[in-house]
Amino acid sequence: MQRLIRFSHTDPAGIVYFPVYFDMFNGVVEDWFTHALGLNYASMILDRRLGLPIVHAECDFLVPSRMGETLTMGVVIERLGRSSLQIRINGEIGDQVRLSGGLTMVTTSLDAFGPVPIPDDIRAAMEAYDAACRA
Amino acid sequence: MQRLIRFSHTDPAGIVYFPVYFDMFNGVVEDWFTHALGLNYASMILDRRLGLPIVHAECDFLVPSRMGETLTMGVVIERLGRSSLQIRINGEIGDQVRLSGGLTMVTTSLDAFGPVPIPDDIRAAMEAYDAACRA
Amino acid sequence: MQRLIRFSHTDPAGIVYFPVYFDMFNGVVEDWFTHALGLNYASMILDRRLGLPIVHAECDFLVPSRMGETLTMGVVIERLGRSSLQIRINGEIGDQVRLSGGLTMVTTSLDAFGPVPIPDDIRAAMEAYDAACRA
Amino acid sequence: MQRLIRFSHTDPAGIVYFPVYFDMFNGVVEDWFTHALGLNYASMILDRRLGLPIVHAECDFLVPSRMGETLTMGVVIERLGRSSLQIRINGEIGDQVRLSGGLTMVTTSLDAFGPVPIPDDIRAAMEAYDAACRA
Repeated sequence: MQRLIRFSHTDPAGIVYFPVYFDMFNGVVEDWFTHALGLNYASMILDRRLGLPIVHAECDFLVPSRMGETLTMGVVIERLGRSSLQIRINGEIGDQVRLSGGLTMVTTSLDAFGPVPIPDDIRAAMEAYDAACRA
Repeated sequence: MQRLIRFSHTDPAGIVYFPVYFDMFNGVVEDWFTHALGLNYASMILDRRLGLPIVHAECDFLVPSRMGETLTMGVVIERLGRSSLQIRINGEIGDQVRLSGGLTMVTTSLDAFGPVPIPDDIRAAMEAYDAACRA
Repeated sequence: MQRLIRFSHTDPAGIVYFPVYFDMFNGVVEDWFTHALGLNYASMILDRRLGLPIVHAECDFLVPSRMGETLTMGVVIERLGRSSLQIRINGEIGDQVRLSGGLTMVTTSLDAFGPVPIPDDIRAAMEAYDAACRA
Repeated sequence: MQRLIRFSHTDPAGIVYFPVYFDMFNGVVEDWFTHALGLNYASMILDRRLGLPIVHAECDFLVPSRMGETLTMGVVIERLGRSSLQIRINGEIGDQVRLSGGLTMVTTSLDAFGPVPIPDDIRAAMEAYDAACRA
């Protein structure tokens, strides 16, 4: 997944304002669901009423990035629990890792406001993705 | 430091969108400099050309918060290095810790684009703050 | 209503990124409801399920503002219709008008997703505010 | 130019939060420069030190849009002055115009902080684009 660094992403020092990366991560998760897992993210939220609230987020900002650069963002599954998912998202330009983030999210019923087990179809898609990454 | 949760901070699930907290953290650092350390943050950036880029950020989101609630954000110094500063920011409502974040930043020359030792006046203000917190 | 210009509000040119002002306007409307009209904005949305979607927004950006400056934002009612409200929000520093924005919003049922007449208590509060401004 | 409506763009009412559209407009202008005018936007800012601050922005929000929808954004030049440019940006889905915005910007030296005439190469690219739109 490619992310162009825009004017609006950068701060008075000319580099990406760090909360922007966390917003990008959320978009990366959406695109990962829709394009890599084959699950429509919007439909999961709006129709299945299944949310993925973040319970932990972290990021190491290794090298600053500037307007006009394009980051390649990749997702790796670190842990797939009963109702929680831990992923790593690296942002790279060429061979250089610019940032490395981690998100832990919990599959949650948006009606009951509580955690629910990861549904079978989503788990199967994640296991297939994980196997493909390891291959 | 008080932070009212606004309509714009919340997502379709009605809770704060997690990158908003990292943006709040940056504002908390600004207010902490200006009000608790007695150092004008804007002047530090614009006049002294000293920046505080974040090299690591993390947060545990323990309890979701909703529009209309007011978080109290407190800053604790965890480590004061030669040119780096590690702080913890907790967001609480009443007795309940809603979120607990950590930021590591490096004092950086905005002209030379490299780390510089924490200036003496800033270090002194941080040490005084830290001593007051522990007292 | 006072608004401190933060680091995160400004762009690589060092001035406020213009969409930030529209986000500020939304916050100004919230505070105006809660503090000037005496109506809890969050409760209006969450409990009364009454929304105020914006159907038109505009702004003249007259003088740029920079990090560390504090804008004073004032609200004037320009037109109070059956289910629509048009306001002007000026942002000033000292005697200087930095920006002048206009918002038109429509009182909308968040359950029926359609416009509803402005409820009597809200209309009365707005008329009282308008009379006080003109006095 | 296509814009997917993401989770983060939408508000507790499930529709796009209006300041997001103005942020999208800024990105549309960037992409318009780079892809339609053949002028690298980032390079214009960073290398030529030429900015395009917005002096007026407006938008009619005609039909709300929701997460998962994809807007097509088109740019039309309304007025090309000596140092100012006025454009219209419509956002459409299928035959339906969802929003119609206007931006007026002024070519500005980021070193001298004042307006400068639109450089010849930029004016030529805009005139060619305008002619192609009218054809």
